[in-house]
Amino acid sequence: MTTNHTPMWKDLGLDIEAHDALLSVLGQAYGDIYLAQENRPEGMGYFDFVMSEVHGQRIQELVDAQAAGRKVIGCYCVFVPEEISLAAEAIQVGLCSGADFAMDEVEKYLPRNTCALIKSSLGFKLAKVCPYLECSDMVVGENTCDGKKKAYETLGTMADNLYVMDLPQVKSGEGRALLKAEFLRYKEAVEALTGNTIDAAALKKGIAIVNNKRKAMARLAALRHNPVLPISGLDALIANQVFFYDNPVRFTDAVNALCDELETRIAEKTSVIADGTPRILVSGCPMAVPNWKLPAVIEASGAVIVAEESCVGERGCRNLTDDSADDMDGLMDALVDRYLAIDCAIFTPNTERAGHIKELAEKSKADGVIQYTLNFCQPYAMEAIPLEKELEETGLPTLRIETDYSQEDMGQLKTRVEAFVELLK
Amino acid sequence: MTTNHTPMWKDLGLDIEAHDALLSVLGQAYGDIYLAQENRPEGMGYFDFVMSEVHGQRIQELVDAQAAGRKVIGCYCVFVPEEISLAAEAIQVGLCSGADFAMDEVEKYLPRNTCALIKSSLGFKLAKVCPYLECSDMVVGENTCDGKKKAYETLGTMADNLYVMDLPQVKSGEGRALLKAEFLRYKEAVEALTGNTIDAAALKKGIAIVNNKRKAMARLAALRHNPVLPISGLDALIANQVFFYDNPVRFTDAVNALCDELETRIAEKTSVIADGTPRILVSGCPMAVPNWKLPAVIEASGAVIVAEESCVGERGCRNLTDDSADDMDGLMDALVDRYLAIDCAIFTPNTERAGHIKELAEKSKADGVIQYTLNFCQPYAMEAIPLEKELEETGLPTLRIETDYSQEDMGQLKTRVEAFVELLK
Ligand code: SF4
Ligand code: SF4
Ligand code: SF4
Ligand code: SF4
Repeated sequence: MTTNHTPMWKDLGLDIEAHDALLSVLGQAYGDIYLAQENRPEGMGYFDFVMSEVHGQRIQELVDAQAAGRKVIGCYCVFVPEEISLAAEAIQVGLCSGADFAMDEVEKYLPRNTCALIKSSLGFKLAKVCPYLECSDMVVGENTCDGKKKAYETLGTMADNLYVMDLPQVKSGEGRALLKAEFLRYKEAVEALTGNTIDAAALKKGIAIVNNKRKAMARLAALRHNPVLPISGLDALIANQVFFYDNPVRFTDAVNALCDELETRIAEKTSVIADGTPRILVSGCPMAVPNWKLPAVIEASGAVIVAEESCVGERGCRNLTDDSADDMDGLMDALVDRYLAIDCAIFTPNTERAGHIKELAEKSKADGVIQYTLNFCQPYAMEAIPLEKELEETGLPTLRIETDYSQEDMGQLKTRVEAFVELLK
Repeated sequence: MTTNHTPMWKDLGLDIEAHDALLSVLGQAYGDIYLAQENRPEGMGYFDFVMSEVHGQRIQELVDAQAAGRKVIGCYCVFVPEEISLAAEAIQVGLCSGADFAMDEVEKYLPRNTCALIKSSLGFKLAKVCPYLECSDMVVGENTCDGKKKAYETLGTMADNLYVMDLPQVKSGEGRALLKAEFLRYKEAVEALTGNTIDAAALKKGIAIVNNKRKAMARLAALRHNPVLPISGLDALIANQVFFYDNPVRFTDAVNALCDELETRIAEKTSVIADGTPRILVSGCPMAVPNWKLPAVIEASGAVIVAEESCVGERGCRNLTDDSADDMDGLMDALVDRYLAIDCAIFTPNTERAGHIKELAEKSKADGVIQYTLNFCQPYAMEAIPLEKELEETGLPTLRIETDYSQEDMGQLKTRVEAFVELLK
């Protein structure tokens, strides 16, 4: 980093020593896993820079925006409508929760049998190492899985700016009514937080910004369907992760610039892989920064990831919001429709998901599917079993991986992934 | 058993060999744990008989009722309103899921990290050993925890008579509207199943029957608050378990007769315990037949259970339905209010629960609380940690137990419970 950000981190109340430790692990891992790749697109330079400044320059931007009167909203799930936050001039950021931190302390508050993502979110809070969390004016939790739903009760005792959004479990008429009521309540909460009233024009602008961001990601996803693969799965994952932190307009431009380059690469037949490299679709739980564990193992095993059916991936990016309405109610309805289409395993039934995975596997020419589940994540673990049957029936080899953020199972993980990749050759 | 029920079991499609094995284990356990107790109330004779005929005479009654045109509805959770089932002349029974069965087969369908209750419910289905399940005309699942919610998707592929009731996660206005809509939908489903239309008078009658059953259980619970303890916790648990299977009117009479006897015992100072025996409140997950594991260990350790803050216990029985309205809408509202008061850990927040446990501990003169959580039950495991803090702050010693239906941890379980009981002496 070029600037000394320590005073800013101190102001935010971070534990400087613990935070230094986190940054150094993160930087080391990024170097080993990302920068060590060969034949990367030049457009990745932007993302490498963003990652190197993810706790620095980007936080400075947020703090500066706050000084100018804007508000920062942190969230843990793709159900929180950024369109509404942007419509009130607020900045929405993801709270990543991709690394173990302060686990001994965490297990005083949460059962050992809790998924790594949830433990991490509490660990970052307890250890005071996440500048996004500490600078957020409002933190939004949501009633998705049992683990998160109950963990927010505990987080709420530590953070007085926690707002919890309720979600339906079924996509019924009543479920839709509940989501709409919650989006309206969220709109009011954001208005109260920012002091800005959201009108239809502002919401339309918010929708346009987010639609453009999603369109750019869809363009990137589609370019990876080409047999000439212009970008690694690891690099595409970084774009999917930065999606949650960066200024949305700047991010959209950077992704589109990257896509321009990838198109040229395809035209010039510059592939990051040799012919015959097994193409993998990864499906399941989100992979938050800096959780690069499974993708790194897969791509080090001689395979390549061509798509992520994940909230940090397709599930978070696909589906645009219809912005044709001109009134608030029509736009809110369109938002509800867009978010209710998310095929997260917390819904029952969640039948669309299998169809989407099959479609995505076909489009991306995947040779196999790796289902990724965090240990103790019941919704995704439960879906993985019937999904595996359904995918294998269509001739798609499938591997189910349950893991966490620790390095303890690395040996076993490598062995299983390598065996699977061999099978696909 | 006096009659040979095998032909009936065959007609129901049970696996006779597996079912014989289950019955013999159940009979053996009941003898060892229940009949071996000393100084039991005579009124327990009724419950011993019911238990001995739980797969026999009671099933014959159900089959006979079906022959006479009535319908049987099986359910897994205390959220399914028996009042509505009774109003349509249907018979509602619990589906117990208190023992491991066909676990190898179950783990082909469900993740290993699933709670024992859910695994058991699928095991009973796969092994064809539950006559209640097999004779049910309709089986009702509900969207409570993630595990059950997703497991019903799998059960639905094996049972074409599965009906799933959606539930809210928050007791908000929207949540209440969702529950009311679901109760109305359930009423229509029961009407379609039985061919009987439910009017206000019929619903009022259903409410009266269930209120009376709950009143009898409240009477039993209150008698256990006396320092002269007229009944063991194990025996009271059997009454709480039979609550879910028996003819409700006959059951109510038997509980009231038992209570009459217990009142005499109290007057005569006939206690099942010696002075100074530690009194325990058990709180947490439901204990379905024949899951007597933890209560048996507690009462063999020289302590006695004086209350169950559980769905098989207080949580299922307390709170009557206001039956003062005379119109359908008023009665449905009263039902929604009654069921929405259930303090299950699936709700967020679920703040009433702590208050109720403290109140119950005080009334029942409990010396300590044992929190009982099935392994991998996230809602109750998550609540157990803040609950423990809150209870201990009021001076109530607390022990957290996580276990399942296997015998593997019996040694450790005994050691921990005995140490806790020693502490209370
Ligand atoms: S997997 Fe579901 S709960 Fe998790 S971030 Fe995605 S939408 Fe939210
Ligand atoms: S990975 Fe699973 S258990 Fe963890 S937060 Fe997401 S849905 Fe919940
Ligand atoms: S603990 Fe909750 S989900 Fe389980 S039976 Fe009771 S009310 Fe239903
Ligand atoms: S014990 Fe817990 S995990 Fe099991 S069915 Fe009940 S609420 Fe769900």
